[in-house]
Amino acid sequence: MQEKVIPRILPGFMELLPTEQILFNDMYDTIRGVYESFGFLPLDTPVIELSEVLLAKAGGETEKQIYRFQKGDSDLSLRFDLTVPLARYVSAHYNDLVFPFKRYQMSKVFRGERPQKGRFREFYQCDIDIIGNEELDLRYDAEMPAIIYRVFEKLGIGDFVIRLNNRKVLGGFFASLGLSDKIEEILRIIDKIEKIGKEAAVSELIALGVAADKTDTIIDFITSDGTCGQILAKLRAMNIENETYASGVAELAAVTEYMRMFGMPEDSFRIDLTIARGLDYYTGTVYETQIKAHPEFGSVCSGGRYDNLTGYYTDKKLPGIGISIGLTRLFSQLLASGLIAPKTGSIARVLLLPMDGNTVPFAVSAATKFRNAGIASDVYFGERGMKQKMKYAGRCGVPYAAVIGDSEAAAGTVALKDMQSGEQKSVTIPEAIEILQNMDK
Amino acid sequence: MQEKVIPRILPGFMELLPTEQILFNDMYDTIRGVYESFGFLPLDTPVIELSEVLLAKAGGETEKQIYRFQKGDSDLSLRFDLTVPLARYVSAHYNDLVFPFKRYQMSKVFRGERPQKGRFREFYQCDIDIIGNEELDLRYDAEMPAIIYRVFEKLGIGDFVIRLNNRKVLGGFFASLGLSDKIEEILRIIDKIEKIGKEAAVSELIALGVAADKTDTIIDFITSDGTCGQILAKLRAMNIENETYASGVAELAAVTEYMRMFGMPEDSFRIDLTIARGLDYYTGTVYETQIKAHPEFGSVCSGGRYDNLTGYYTDKKLPGIGISIGLTRLFSQLLASGLIAPKTGSIARVLLLPMDGNTVPFAVSAATKFRNAGIASDVYFGERGMKQKMKYAGRCGVPYAAVIGDSEAAAGTVALKDMQSGEQKSVTIPEAIEILQNMDK
Repeated sequence: MQEKVIPRILPGFMELLPTEQILFNDMYDTIRGVYESFGFLPLDTPVIELSEVLLAKAGGETEKQIYRFQKGDSDLSLRFDLTVPLARYVSAHYNDLVFPFKRYQMSKVFRGERPQKGRFREFYQCDIDIIGNEELDLRYDAEMPAIIYRVFEKLGIGDFVIRLNNRKVLGGFFASLGLSDKIEEILRIIDKIEKIGKEAAVSELIALGVAADKTDTIIDFITSDGTCGQILAKLRAMNIENETYASGVAELAAVTEYMRMFGMPEDSFRIDLTIARGLDYYTGTVYETQIKAHPEFGSVCSGGRYDNLTGYYTDKKLPGIGISIGLTRLFSQLLASGLIAPKTGSIARVLLLPMDGNTVPFAVSAATKFRNAGIASDVYFGERGMKQKMKYAGRCGVPYAAVIGDSEAAAGTVALKDMQSGEQKSVTIPEAIEILQNMDK
Repeated sequence: MQEKVIPRILPGFMELLPTEQILFNDMYDTIRGVYESFGFLPLDTPVIELSEVLLAKAGGETEKQIYRFQKGDSDLSLRFDLTVPLARYVSAHYNDLVFPFKRYQMSKVFRGERPQKGRFREFYQCDIDIIGNEELDLRYDAEMPAIIYRVFEKLGIGDFVIRLNNRKVLGGFFASLGLSDKIEEILRIIDKIEKIGKEAAVSELIALGVAADKTDTIIDFITSDGTCGQILAKLRAMNIENETYASGVAELAAVTEYMRMFGMPEDSFRIDLTIARGLDYYTGTVYETQIKAHPEFGSVCSGGRYDNLTGYYTDKKLPGIGISIGLTRLFSQLLASGLIAPKTGSIARVLLLPMDGNTVPFAVSAATKFRNAGIASDVYFGERGMKQKMKYAGRCGVPYAAVIGDSEAAAGTVALKDMQSGEQKSVTIPEAIEILQNMDK
């Protein structure tokens, strides 16, 4: 006997059993379907890129998390998101693309974080982005959440709310307080206010050198509550003389108005001035999404507008807007909370069980007819007793078994058994097709 | 102006333009559809694994190609195929799986080869495997090529032939020549005979220490030509007294017979004794697939039976059979040879073009109705002249444009333009839906 290697995977990596994988793929396919229904084009960038290219912008926290290594003479990195590769892609293929360029990519990204609960080192991001040439209409800022609304509606995992803000409102406000040189840092602190609480945020602001009275003003400002209309009215009533601020408020007002036009119900979104997306490259509208009954999930879908992301690669002005669902994390949260549960361990809708070798040819030809009618079918070829075969069908979770003995093969029928109810009846192949095609209706 | 980074990817990595990506995804979805129609379960293993686990079996050429690196204390590797991760998976999840376990995985794998024409360092493998518990019926050896037949028939890229052999036939024959200690090396030489030619193969055999008369016997043997029946008759007539040989011939005969039962036409497969799959872990049936008009593509789909692949992880006996399509390479060959060509740069079937801001709400509500009817739809929000918008529609490659001016919005109609023919007519939304739903029929 040779020494065995323990068959294990790394912590922080998700690997599912088939029942769970079927459920995961259903969610993946649903998201892809909605993205495509809005005309987004598919993209598939390499997992491995040149570090010089991929990390053009990165630094700090991001850089530490990168899986980066040398192969031959090349300094390589695994992608840590799908947005930087998109910026690289549109810069490189500018002449071959039609703008506004709408693309989706739903692929794995890699972050070598310290493993902790709910954090993955390899996970799917399901991204949509729209990149404009020179300009990008503000209506696209509203189309993004409208698409996300549709996605979450289809996923059927409960009520959710898309919280939106505009970086210009925050930036302009801080500038009006004379804090222009600290905007990035303040955004980063605000970004974690939900996690660390108001008091800790105030301490951090003071440590940053913000005067105590101004910290109160900032906290008051960002925790403004009310309907979109009320918050917008308050923002306007403050009479802040700052162009960036004014333009941010106008954008926020327009985007909420457009969101209504896209048919989003009033309770599906709200303005939340604490949304800052601190570590990111956003320059205008920003979003986060919460499952109402599960605020502890954190944001299940985030994004925003970025005007300068391609600046590292090209002089062309290519403003963009994008949003991302962290599917691996969301899936694991939904599964753990019981909001979703595996339904079946079978892709086949019917399992054909030939009694013995003689009836195999008829079973195979019946399976072919089922498949031609769009019914996924499996044939069991092992030479076992029927009791064992039926046990296998039960363990599989296949909805129907079709038993074929000599008499069935001779008559051109199958004994079709509903595995749930146990009911079994002798039917012709066309009759079986009818039953199997209608089982989900 | 900041210094720009050249937006480029590494050689040996495939990245497609949207028109090509749509075509690639069509092929991917077709393959997935066939795999699922046979009841295979989806699987998605991590890209990054522990080197100790992933490389339990590897060595030589394989090991050199691995993307292997250190992160923290961990020695990590990117997967180089999907078969070793499968062996690891079934060993780890043995108690949770139902055997025979049929799974598909269609994911990227990574091989840091020296870049050369037609070779990729990151590429999709589309694998199906069936793993048995203790035993696995020989009929599954015939189901594999039957599935591949269905895949290539659906891909519609021309006539193809699945060449099959059985390692036991070769191994038993070499043993009967007294070459038991050189079987692996001989298989490796035979495996490249198509590439290097007979003479070079003979030289290598002699260099290996095979006597000159035996090299002739070997070459004669493996280049046997004829129908399946003729070759099987010849193999039997040789009266070779070797158990492995006899069992290999019996298996080969049974598998070809089963392939007929699966409905494979006689000209879609043949026995080819030069097929050895030299570098792999196969122990019985082996396959390669050729596009008849393009032998220069090499094998576009290969696989076989392996009895001991899980031996590194478990004492359980889990024989398997699998087959793999190297989709990235195949796609690039098909594209280069003109056997496939991008058809459209648009996922949307219709692009809605509101004349101005006033007609945007009607355009959005029409698009929603189209999407609810299953028609992928895009709305152009940029504020441009209609001429520019129409030019955009043309460049997109979208099949229909729906122009919406004030009169259309008032009447609840769109001016639907067939972008191919240029024909345009005013239709209601339900009429437009009817046209758009039937466009492909």
